[in-house]
Amino acid sequence: MTKNKPKNNYQGGAEDFKGFIRLSSNENNDGPSSRVKTALKNNVNFSNIYPELDGETLRNQISKTYSLNSEQLILGAGSDEVLQMIYATFTKPGDEVIFTKYAFAMYAIYAKNFKCKPRIFNDSKFQFSLNEFAKLASSKTKIIFLANPNNPTGSIFYKDEIINFIKKINKKTLIVLDSAYCEYLQEKNYDDGLSLVKKFPNLIITRSFSKIYALGGLRIGWGYSSMQNILKLYQYKKPFNVSRLSCIAATEALKDQRWISRSIKNNQNNKKYTANNLNNSLIKTIDTTANFILLKFSHEKIANKFVKFLYTNKITVRHLASYGLPKYVRMTIGSLTEMKKTIKVCNRFNV
Amino acid sequence: MTKNKPKNNYQGGAEDFKGFIRLSSNENNDGPSSRVKTALKNNVNFSNIYPELDGETLRNQISKTYSLNSEQLILGAGSDEVLQMIYATFTKPGDEVIFTKYAFAMYAIYAKNFKCKPRIFNDSKFQFSLNEFAKLASSKTKIIFLANPNNPTGSIFYKDEIINFIKKINKKTLIVLDSAYCEYLQEKNYDDGLSLVKKFPNLIITRSFSKIYALGGLRIGWGYSSMQNILKLYQYKKPFNVSRLSCIAATEALKDQRWISRSIKNNQNNKKYTANNLNNSLIKTIDTTANFILLKFSHEKIANKFVKFLYTNKITVRHLASYGLPKYVRMTIGSLTEMKKTIKVCNRFNV
Repeated sequence: MTKNKPKNNYQGGAEDFKGFIRLSSNENNDGPSSRVKTALKNNVNFSNIYPELDGETLRNQISKTYSLNSEQLILGAGSDEVLQMIYATFTKPGDEVIFTKYAFAMYAIYAKNFKCKPRIFNDSKFQFSLNEFAKLASSKTKIIFLANPNNPTGSIFYKDEIINFIKKINKKTLIVLDSAYCEYLQEKNYDDGLSLVKKFPNLIITRSFSKIYALGGLRIGWGYSSMQNILKLYQYKKPFNVSRLSCIAATEALKDQRWISRSIKNNQNNKKYTANNLNNSLIKTIDTTANFILLKFSHEKIANKFVKFLYTNKITVRHLASYGLPKYVRMTIGSLTEMKKTIKVCNRFNV
Repeated sequence: MTKNKPKNNYQGGAEDFKGFIRLSSNENNDGPSSRVKTALKNNVNFSNIYPELDGETLRNQISKTYSLNSEQLILGAGSDEVLQMIYATFTKPGDEVIFTKYAFAMYAIYAKNFKCKPRIFNDSKFQFSLNEFAKLASSKTKIIFLANPNNPTGSIFYKDEIINFIKKINKKTLIVLDSAYCEYLQEKNYDDGLSLVKKFPNLIITRSFSKIYALGGLRIGWGYSSMQNILKLYQYKKPFNVSRLSCIAATEALKDQRWISRSIKNNQNNKKYTANNLNNSLIKTIDTTANFILLKFSHEKIANKFVKFLYTNKITVRHLASYGLPKYVRMTIGSLTEMKKTIKVCNRFNV
């Protein structure tokens, strides 16, 4: 039976977590705020009651937090589901879609599901030129997917570059700006894209509660675009796609922005600390603008051995072989205590 | 802006619940068991951690509870999502699908989403003949959807009738047996369909944790079929479609079968009590085999007035106008206390 074992197309991070330092899935190891935890506990008794049909309370809170029109918002079970709704709504078999080689795996998995033709930009240098990327698009392109910043390569584009890029693209082509990691960017010249939707109706922003908001386990994300795109997406939305508890948790998380700010600060500090103290000549570290760093090894076998060594020391990290980057390991930035222990283990690693 | 307001194709029950007796969405008003509530509270702190990729722990528990091969199981965010995956996996635009006129609204909504051609059986008598239903199918039929028992009509088919029906259908046609309400059926000659999958590889069973298991708010359901169908469905499944807390709740709910049995008993008793004591000459009551009864009125306007009257008395029920049954109201069976109060209000209703 084993050879027939149902197998998801996606390869995720490690699933172990009890007793482990978990640095494999870019989760926020600070966990949800006490306000969120209290709200969840207070609402457990209502688990028998269906969620609000389209998550109005949460959409209103997102609208308040980010000054958006709540009617231009759509919720998904993670931004994964928003991406799936985008494919389902706007593509038909044979349509051309564009993304980078080292991008979120779901862009390509959905392209296959929906029988679209992917055109793939080779971002082997990780940070690439949006001018070059734009050249891949034509009037035939249905959707362009671009994550900013990108996981796992950490590539990042600033506001002016993004605007220039959008202007180069045919207005009939949808541009999906995946901003799952945007909260980690605090620079003024960075833009999560929300402010650009008014000017560019072909832009769709996707957002996640799985990263800084520390709700990866609850599957909740959202999309924001022009009214005409959102109305189309609603035609495909399942009535109750997001759990009641998830909506409550996300609403409370948004209200606790002080906790979010502290968590962003923690990430910055702990990442700096990690980069400064990780000094093993076998490991080249590459900083990213998000909540992870990349570790580069001279050979796939060494990367593999490193991941196993960390695992025996009860630390999980993500080997990027499934992303086509076998010499690379992605390490999420956890708490300071976690990083101190991890650095000690990493510095001890030998072949 | 109101005219452009995003609007889901689905019309759900009332969303009020605090201070209301909620009899509008066929939820289990006993709520989840204390075992489930404790497990949820104990796991709130881990909301930052992604769920298991394909819900192995929950699949193993389902497999144990119902003696099934866990590899033939697939989880969804409610059986809604399993139905969506079935459409996405097995249909292409123009394909013929069959269901009854007064069936779960999502069969038709998905048919539209996936550009399938629905052929609709008129079950205006509510309880209909499967022999007649089978005549609608041909070698061109891709999928037949049949709920047993059916919501909202309460139609019910016993094991022999179901087997005869399946035998009449072309082996290349998929038969989706939606068993969301099956737990309410305790008769030996009823079958939820799980035992038939071995013999009929074209059969897919869908199940829900939203009804007797009292987890409607957490969006969790499952599908069971031959390995070949399940392998195909996995190609379309989102990696993390179901929340961590939902998987934990469902696993614990399955372990607490004593609580489930008590809840089934409560439903039987409270339904009998309701049918016996509801005696308003304006209302004709129709018993069903599930956790609701139907109330028939002589005119749509009276049905409408009744729903509003109950609402002002803080009771929500479901007007079936959106199901094309404007003279009917569906009333979920709640707790004995709730039903006693509801009966008093109903008996007071006048035009």
